[in-house]
Amino acid sequence: MIAGVIGATGYAGAELVRLLAGHPKVESLALASVSHQGDSIDRIYPNFLGKIKATLEKPEEALARSNVVFAALPHGVGEPFAKSCIEKGIPFIDLSADFRFDDDEATFAAWYGKPFVHKELRKYSVYGLPELNRERIKELAAAGKVIIGNPGCYPTGASLGAFPALAKGIAGAGTIIVDSASGITGGGRDPSRAFHYPECADSITPYKVGAHRHTPEISRNFQAMAARASSVPGPGSSVPGPGLIFTPHLAPMNRGILSTIYIPLAESWKPRESSGGAPRPPTKEIEEKVAEIRKVYEDFYQSEPFVRILPAGDIAASGRVRHSNFCDISIHLDQGGSTLVVVSAIDNMVKGAAGQAVQNMNLIFGFDETAGLEAVPALF
Amino acid sequence: MIAGVIGATGYAGAELVRLLAGHPKVESLALASVSHQGDSIDRIYPNFLGKIKATLEKPEEALARSNVVFAALPHGVGEPFAKSCIEKGIPFIDLSADFRFDDDEATFAAWYGKPFVHKELRKYSVYGLPELNRERIKELAAAGKVIIGNPGCYPTGASLGAFPALAKGIAGAGTIIVDSASGITGGGRDPSRAFHYPECADSITPYKVGAHRHTPEISRNFQAMAARASSVPGPGSSVPGPGLIFTPHLAPMNRGILSTIYIPLAESWKPRESSGGAPRPPTKEIEEKVAEIRKVYEDFYQSEPFVRILPAGDIAASGRVRHSNFCDISIHLDQGGSTLVVVSAIDNMVKGAAGQAVQNMNLIFGFDETAGLEAVPALF
Amino acid sequence: MIAGVIGATGYAGAELVRLLAGHPKVESLALASVSHQGDSIDRIYPNFLGKIKATLEKPEEALARSNVVFAALPHGVGEPFAKSCIEKGIPFIDLSADFRFDDDEATFAAWYGKPFVHKELRKYSVYGLPELNRERIKELAAAGKVIIGNPGCYPTGASLGAFPALAKGIAGAGTIIVDSASGITGGGRDPSRAFHYPECADSITPYKVGAHRHTPEISRNFQAMAARASSVPGPGSSVPGPGLIFTPHLAPMNRGILSTIYIPLAESWKPRESSGGAPRPPTKEIEEKVAEIRKVYEDFYQSEPFVRILPAGDIAASGRVRHSNFCDISIHLDQGGSTLVVVSAIDNMVKGAAGQAVQNMNLIFGFDETAGLEAVPALF
Amino acid sequence: MIAGVIGATGYAGAELVRLLAGHPKVESLALASVSHQGDSIDRIYPNFLGKIKATLEKPEEALARSNVVFAALPHGVGEPFAKSCIEKGIPFIDLSADFRFDDDEATFAAWYGKPFVHKELRKYSVYGLPELNRERIKELAAAGKVIIGNPGCYPTGASLGAFPALAKGIAGAGTIIVDSASGITGGGRDPSRAFHYPECADSITPYKVGAHRHTPEISRNFQAMAARASSVPGPGSSVPGPGLIFTPHLAPMNRGILSTIYIPLAESWKPRESSGGAPRPPTKEIEEKVAEIRKVYEDFYQSEPFVRILPAGDIAASGRVRHSNFCDISIHLDQGGSTLVVVSAIDNMVKGAAGQAVQNMNLIFGFDETAGLEAVPALF
Repeated sequence: MIAGVIGATGYAGAELVRLLAGHPKVESLALASVSHQGDSIDRIYPNFLGKIKATLEKPEEALARSNVVFAALPHGVGEPFAKSCIEKGIPFIDLSADFRFDDDEATFAAWYGKPFVHKELRKYSVYGLPELNRERIKELAAAGKVIIGNPGCYPTGASLGAFPALAKGIAGAGTIIVDSASGITGGGRDPSRAFHYPECADSITPYKVGAHRHTPEISRNFQAMAARASSVPGPGSSVPGPGLIFTPHLAPMNRGILSTIYIPLAESWKPRESSGGAPRPPTKEIEEKVAEIRKVYEDFYQSEPFVRILPAGDIAASGRVRHSNFCDISIHLDQGGSTLVVVSAIDNMVKGAAGQAVQNMNLIFGFDETAGLEAVPALF
Repeated sequence: MIAGVIGATGYAGAELVRLLAGHPKVESLALASVSHQGDSIDRIYPNFLGKIKATLEKPEEALARSNVVFAALPHGVGEPFAKSCIEKGIPFIDLSADFRFDDDEATFAAWYGKPFVHKELRKYSVYGLPELNRERIKELAAAGKVIIGNPGCYPTGASLGAFPALAKGIAGAGTIIVDSASGITGGGRDPSRAFHYPECADSITPYKVGAHRHTPEISRNFQAMAARASSVPGPGSSVPGPGLIFTPHLAPMNRGILSTIYIPLAESWKPRESSGGAPRPPTKEIEEKVAEIRKVYEDFYQSEPFVRILPAGDIAASGRVRHSNFCDISIHLDQGGSTLVVVSAIDNMVKGAAGQAVQNMNLIFGFDETAGLEAVPALF
Repeated sequence: MIAGVIGATGYAGAELVRLLAGHPKVESLALASVSHQGDSIDRIYPNFLGKIKATLEKPEEALARSNVVFAALPHGVGEPFAKSCIEKGIPFIDLSADFRFDDDEATFAAWYGKPFVHKELRKYSVYGLPELNRERIKELAAAGKVIIGNPGCYPTGASLGAFPALAKGIAGAGTIIVDSASGITGGGRDPSRAFHYPECADSITPYKVGAHRHTPEISRNFQAMAARASSVPGPGSSVPGPGLIFTPHLAPMNRGILSTIYIPLAESWKPRESSGGAPRPPTKEIEEKVAEIRKVYEDFYQSEPFVRILPAGDIAASGRVRHSNFCDISIHLDQGGSTLVVVSAIDNMVKGAAGQAVQNMNLIFGFDETAGLEAVPALF
Repeated sequence: MIAGVIGATGYAGAELVRLLAGHPKVESLALASVSHQGDSIDRIYPNFLGKIKATLEKPEEALARSNVVFAALPHGVGEPFAKSCIEKGIPFIDLSADFRFDDDEATFAAWYGKPFVHKELRKYSVYGLPELNRERIKELAAAGKVIIGNPGCYPTGASLGAFPALAKGIAGAGTIIVDSASGITGGGRDPSRAFHYPECADSITPYKVGAHRHTPEISRNFQAMAARASSVPGPGSSVPGPGLIFTPHLAPMNRGILSTIYIPLAESWKPRESSGGAPRPPTKEIEEKVAEIRKVYEDFYQSEPFVRILPAGDIAASGRVRHSNFCDISIHLDQGGSTLVVVSAIDNMVKGAAGQAVQNMNLIFGFDETAGLEAVPALF
């Protein structure tokens, strides 16, 4: 098959190109760029020299000869290509936010500053987090018209980290805090002061505190999973949609997102011993509770090919999933026993963008879900 | 005067040496090391070549000829030197945890695994966070016998970030979450796998989740400040000692600690408009509330020489306080308006260790509090 | 087939494990460790979790059931395993220096401090730089007994950068200077002060100036290639074995070796215009000469699957070959026109160690030489 | 006195501001910017908050009320300010290349693409490398009109590393190779792809090979020093102006320049034992020769406040001079004994730019040469 990539020269686009070039079912690539038409991709990314040879086409040309189209474009410009693909029956996988809020144009408009362009496309689109919507993705694909709203990088790590707690009644009432740190590739390829080497090396800082666009996406995912829990009787069934506070940080590293997620425990999951006043070192009861919750996570994700629940004593680190589509998750409790602390780690360029897009392509076409995504996480 | 440093070859000790060498009141240094006696400090730290020339002595020898003694030793070994200093009337400034829990031997024993060695020394000791205990430090110094329990690095940044909210009734009931990231110098000079360059470069990870020894120190500081608030009538007077969750992270940088601190707002401080359901972008009311709280912070710290409250629109970054004794603080609200998000940044080696120790020396001797600590934060 | 790795827990061993796990001809792995027997490799390298599952065996056990054995051991301990393999007819690929000096025990002894243990093994061994010794490797493999002395990391990059100049008479008389910088993984997995994060981050320094063990290996390779040139008539035929100065540097990065190689030009290759006195900006004649030499390099390496000669205007960078087996080479002249400046870049862990070892395995077994080594260099 | 800085918002300008703010003789600053007039310097550099408060003025205004003027502007735009200062009798210290080639307009024009604007100013200007031209700087200052052409960053480290060898006849005939690596601040404050974090982190690469503008500046300095040697009888007196090859590299670090300098030894300085054929480990004779040359270097620089000759066994590292005005130099021989290998390290922002400018100010005004430059190199 031929895989088309529109916006192939940005970081997410180039990572897609790299992954698709090694995909066993992809015979050739049709690469497009709005700004670099006529250039060779291996001149823009010399890493590709001798491995990936392709001239950048006009988007329409690339689209016309593709069996699947990925768009790695800025928000707000890809809908016409989606429309075109739907008309031609070509699956469209969009890495921007344009199709991530299908049921909620108001929220999209509030955070992204514009309404939907083609409202009618939403009946074909689905939020492409396979661990949440795998069946719906397959359904749409089977029906012949499908648009994937590929998830944001932070929402992927945050959602996977919280889902089992939300689905299984471990999360109690109260606000969930997601404190995340991302590598600088998350900021894309365009130079700017914030990503100028001396400005960000050897320093860490939050940004867009209380104002990052991924907040409503994470919140919506949490609500969706909590709603599923509520639909079956059980200890967590009465959990209202949780509140969310999300703070992204910029960390001096190339790749990776680490999220430390603070989830208030449901009463039924709290250790019986209370720490009362002053903090105390972790007790045996806390260790046991952690083990119990870890078991719930393992069961929840047992069929998922890209989620790894780390064994006792281990803590997720962004550097351990480098260049892979894995999401690593480790389970902890605060010493007081009131709050579940989940740590999740993904590669922002892979599971947080291009890898997840390929996973969605695999689902749509019925390929092995791990096809082209088998890389063992790199050592350094 | 002669300043003695016991444990001069560790990172905190060496930073002390560097700061003291530039202190206008310090005429000479008496450097001691348990393991490197007889060596020259500029062979161990070639940075010092031509600037600081001193042969490492036995601790007892250095102590005997010093007018003030700093100890930068592992926890649990410095009390005999403290005793000796008290007997001789020499101020003793201890960078370990040994004198940080003077009123609470049980907590110290629970987290550090041993009881106090010389219980009787506690009547001379004080927790040396000047912004909390400046008067007590001066009192003890005036009385002629003083031991400083110099604060831990994380507790310094976390406490300064939360104090005004606790003291002024901005913090409501509920748990405060401190999510911090530290540079690798925080791990000290001894090589180990965790701090081996390839293991920590280009990666971020939490460690000791729910189990870090700085947890009780931060908690105690919070309680102490909240108690002060309670003792005077006012909107915050009924705040109970807040719960605490603390998660330290290791970030790929040399210096700096950034803490993102989540403090539940007291009802009286919450914006009137509620976000209700889905997250919304920050409103004007939220901006105004942030400005109001920033004003409280500015007033609270107006006489403090080393705390900088950042102006609107700015966010604290660890790289902006490099090599200085400053604690930068920026004020934010989550988009839902329920939680104050304070970001604080310090240099872990300066305000988080050696600089604060010098600040304490200045207080004890009645020097200008900023003497030897005037460095403008480095650009990169 | 079963591939055995002795010393699987060091960095080179682990990278081998990672590459072999993805090799299309390798069905399973037999991993051995002297120090970690009984442990699971995915506990030592959590990156491998869910991908590579193997318990570390005794070396003898792993060897006994393998079809090929790799040894990633310290220098001087692997010869008994080599002997055992030769007796059993199992190809042995040694990543240490033990078999890199087969014809020159004196040099080995002078630089490595000990003589050969099993001198008689040398009739089966070959220095495993395929670009130099491909035919000999195949010959030995065909004869049924083969030991590969897998090249050192610096010698690989330096040799590939200089070979065409030496073979084609571009290099004139005089000393070649190889100035190289390596990432910290080159120092291996054991923690030490030199590789402690704060000691090497944000700093660059040479080490073992005039004294690095790779000097005789590079020099021998240069001589071997120059000797080939001499055996055929031509402009370079009278070139004596060139002198060599080699300076390695430690750079603050995880992976990669960049070598800047200064090769005095043979008279016949010098631009006609002389710069005479003061330096002048590069002239058109210099550009043309560079193009001419680049052509020689392209021709020389035209059949090599892992050498990329960069196009005009491009300069080799260590970050562009990350995680690949490529050696990138760019061609330059100094502005005075006296000296060829070749820049070569490899990933020290791949072409500089594990990848080249796999390349040698492919040659021995007649697999496609790129099998298991098809990775497109990573973007970041 | 009032110190004026034109171009205060670039990296070199801001470092100047930081140094001048701590200078004991500077009472206030007059900061100017072409592009940021009216802004406050502590908004552009938040590091300065609470320490340095100044509104950016028009260059002419700042100049008019200053006792000394520094210009940290792009090449080619500062001459009018220099003219104005000369007319007013204000010392002018120029950090651009405009006044570095006073005797050689042809070379300047060839490399910088334009002739001198005000040729007549050259009678007042001097190349401001104090270790080369201290007396001339003082002479011009005494005469009341002085322009300093503050040296380039690479030329400073390279020149200081080679001077004693050139002056004392240690350098023989032949080409000197300077292989340097610089931190990213050397590229200035303007964002660009080359300095975008992901493009340069974890990678090293040369740039402008055979074509960097600092080549003629280094070459001219070498010739000037060699000429001095020739004017006095002695072993080195017949050394012709040496050839030069210079290759700059971009290394993933914030600050620092490390230069590895290869200088062919004069016959009289070569070890008697020849290595003959294959490389051998360093001999005792080589160690002794190194010690002899180190002694020459120590003597040469014995009165220099900012040059440190490292003791035997130590190697210069860029990280050891961080934030200081020092140039560290270590002395080595290649194992063959033909070539002196000198390693020099400076902080590119201090001795390589702003610090050296302050040193020149100190010389001009007769202050202690180290005034404002006493910082002990930072630990990390």
